[in-house]
Formats: sequence, C-alpha cells, structure tokens
Amino acid sequence: MAHINLENDLPGIRGLMAYSPQTAKPLNELAEIMLRDDNNTLTRGERELIGTYVSYLNDCFFCQNVHGSLAGHYLGCDIPEIDAIKKEPSLTNIPDKLKALLAVAAKVQEGGRHVTADVIENAKDAGATDKEIHDTVLIAAAFCMYNRYVDGLATWSPKDRQFYVERAPKRAEEGYIDFDLYNNTIS
Amino acid sequence: MAHINLENDLPGIRGLMAYSPQTAKPLNELAEIMLRDDNNTLTRGERELIGTYVSYLNDCFFCQNVHGSLAGHYLGCDIPEIDAIKKEPSLTNIPDKLKALLAVAAKVQEGGRHVTADVIENAKDAGATDKEIHDTVLIAAAFCMYNRYVDGLATWSPKDRQFYVERAPKRAEEGYIDFDLYNNTIS
Repeated sequence: MAHINLENDLPGIRGLMAYSPQTAKPLNELAEIMLRDDNNTLTRGERELIGTYVSYLNDCFFCQNVHGSLAGHYLGCDIPEIDAIKKEPSLTNIPDKLKALLAVAAKVQEGGRHVTADVIENAKDAGATDKEIHDTVLIAAAFCMYNRYVDGLATWSPKDRQFYVERAPKRAEEGYIDFDLYNNTIS
Repeated sequence: MAHINLENDLPGIRGLMAYSPQTAKPLNELAEIMLRDDNNTLTRGERELIGTYVSYLNDCFFCQNVHGSLAGHYLGCDIPEIDAIKKEPSLTNIPDKLKALLAVAAKVQEGGRHVTADVIENAKDAGATDKEIHDTVLIAAAFCMYNRYVDGLATWSPKDRQFYVERAPKRAEEGYIDFDLYNNTIS
C-alpha cells in the first residue's frame, strides 16, 4: 500500500501522475524529449536502456520493467538479454560506446560528484559526442528522480514481468504525453 | 572546467539550460510548480529548504547555495542559520512538522526504498498532510536529479557564497520560468 492515499489504483508513477497532474505534465514532457525525441544520435532503445540500467541500480522494480520492456522492444532483446545487460553491461555484446555511456550513467547513479574525468574520457574515446554524454547524464539523473518518486511513496507494481513486455509496443507507439492514463493501467 | 563544451560561461544548471533549452523547459516548469505554486500549504521558504537540505546531502555546492539563499530570503534566515538547519535540522527551532518532512527528504536522498513507514508516520503525527508528504518526496527526488545534472557534468560555480545571497531577492521575484538567462549569470 502506498504511503499516502492516492485515491486511485493505478500502479507505479501512473498512480502518482493521476494524483498530481500538475507535476505530471513537466515530468512526462521531460521523458518525451529525453527518451523519444527524434533529433538525437542515440536510438530510443539505447536511451531506454540507460534509464533501465539506472532503475536497476536504484532497485526500482516498476521503472526497470517498464523501461526494460521498452528497451527490449526497440532493441529486439528478450527479458534475459536485458537482464544480462543490467547485471554487467561490459560482459555483453552491446557496442563499446553504449558500454562506456552506461558506465557514465552508473557513476551518476552513485552521485554527481562520482562522475570522474576518466569515465567521461573513456566515453569520448569510444566515440561518444558531447551531446550524447550530456543526454546520458541527464537521463541517468532523471531516473534517480523517477525511481525515488515511485519507491519513496511506496507505490504498487504488477509483479508479473510479462505484463510489462506485453504493454511495451503500445507504450512505444503512444509515448509519454498523449496516453490515456486511465485506460492504460499496467505501465 | 565542465566535462563537455557547453559553449557558454554560465554557472551551474544555467550553463546546462543554455546548452539544452529543450530539456530546460520542463526542468524549469517542474521547479516552478514544486517550489513556487501558490496552491500549496507548504510555504515557498519551506519548499526551498527541502531542496537545499537534499542538495547539501548530495554535496552540490551550486544548488545548496542558490536554494539556501532563496530559503533564507523567504524565511528571514542568514547563511549561518541555514547552515545549522542543513547540518542537523532536529537541533534547530524550525517547526516539528518541517523537521519531520526534512527527515522524509533525507530518506529519499538515500534512495526510494529507504523511505520507511515509520518516517512517514512521524510526519503524519507532526501534522503533515498526504499532499505535503507527496510534495516533499517529489521535491527531494527532483533535487537528486538537479544535483546530479549539475555535478555529473562538472559545471562551475561562483565560490563566494555572498553572491548567491545577493541574487536571491531577484530570483524570488522572477521565478524559474520567466527569467532572462543571459542577463542573470550568477545563479
């Protein structure tokens, strides 16, 4: 049960957004630009993977499944493949640039001051642009917010991971702004 | 020097917002609603203090001085008084409800799953409403994002704390949306 009475039975951040639509608006607009805007050299799958990885590091079940399923949808990976990347990106066959950006994201998750010049240089050496590094830091930072919002108020989440996988194609189609909150109760 | 070339010499989050105006828009809108909206039973000073405290716990010099100066402006406190609250809120003479909400914020700073039913019950016992607890968790979570964005990209900050104090009245007047980014270079 959530720490406060949300006056709805929607899961995860959806319940919070229905409770507080005024703050939901910029939170959704931020997600839409960071994760879906087409003017970006990182693919939607890569950006969802950064959010998934940070959500895993923050142990946020809802966010890592919503966004892990979206990453899997875009990248053509199943749950075990996404789980392997979350557990140890360096041991998987994702591109070196993405590995280096996930290493930056892991440092951001620890705290802003943990991001060393070394980890940034490694990303640049692997081909990451300044804009890609900027976006990685912002996505990682933003998921440190979304994860804390979801778990800090103890929202509930569907436990069956397959639910999230099945919703992903529709979520990918509708995005973070123009969805129908109340007709879309799983994720 | 920042980890990436921001193509401007603005400090802290201002430099990042000039670099990435598209994401600056929802980031500023979120701050405006959370910290300044009049339809809120927490004062602007109390809300700025929550952000200041989390920025202190995250060791973000820029954010704790920008928002600490704003909190001081609204609450009529000087730097040593704000510093005493940041260091140990329970030892100061702020209201019990605010102490309890700062304790919630401190748990959010550690991580969403660190927010226990006990710390929430303490806040409710001290008179906090569900909406005030919601807003405290969201403000604390959002500052975990802003702090990581500012320090994760190693932005520069004016070192003289008096600069922030002197800018606070103007920041309080103009808010987070309608300011002139380039004519307001300190905070």
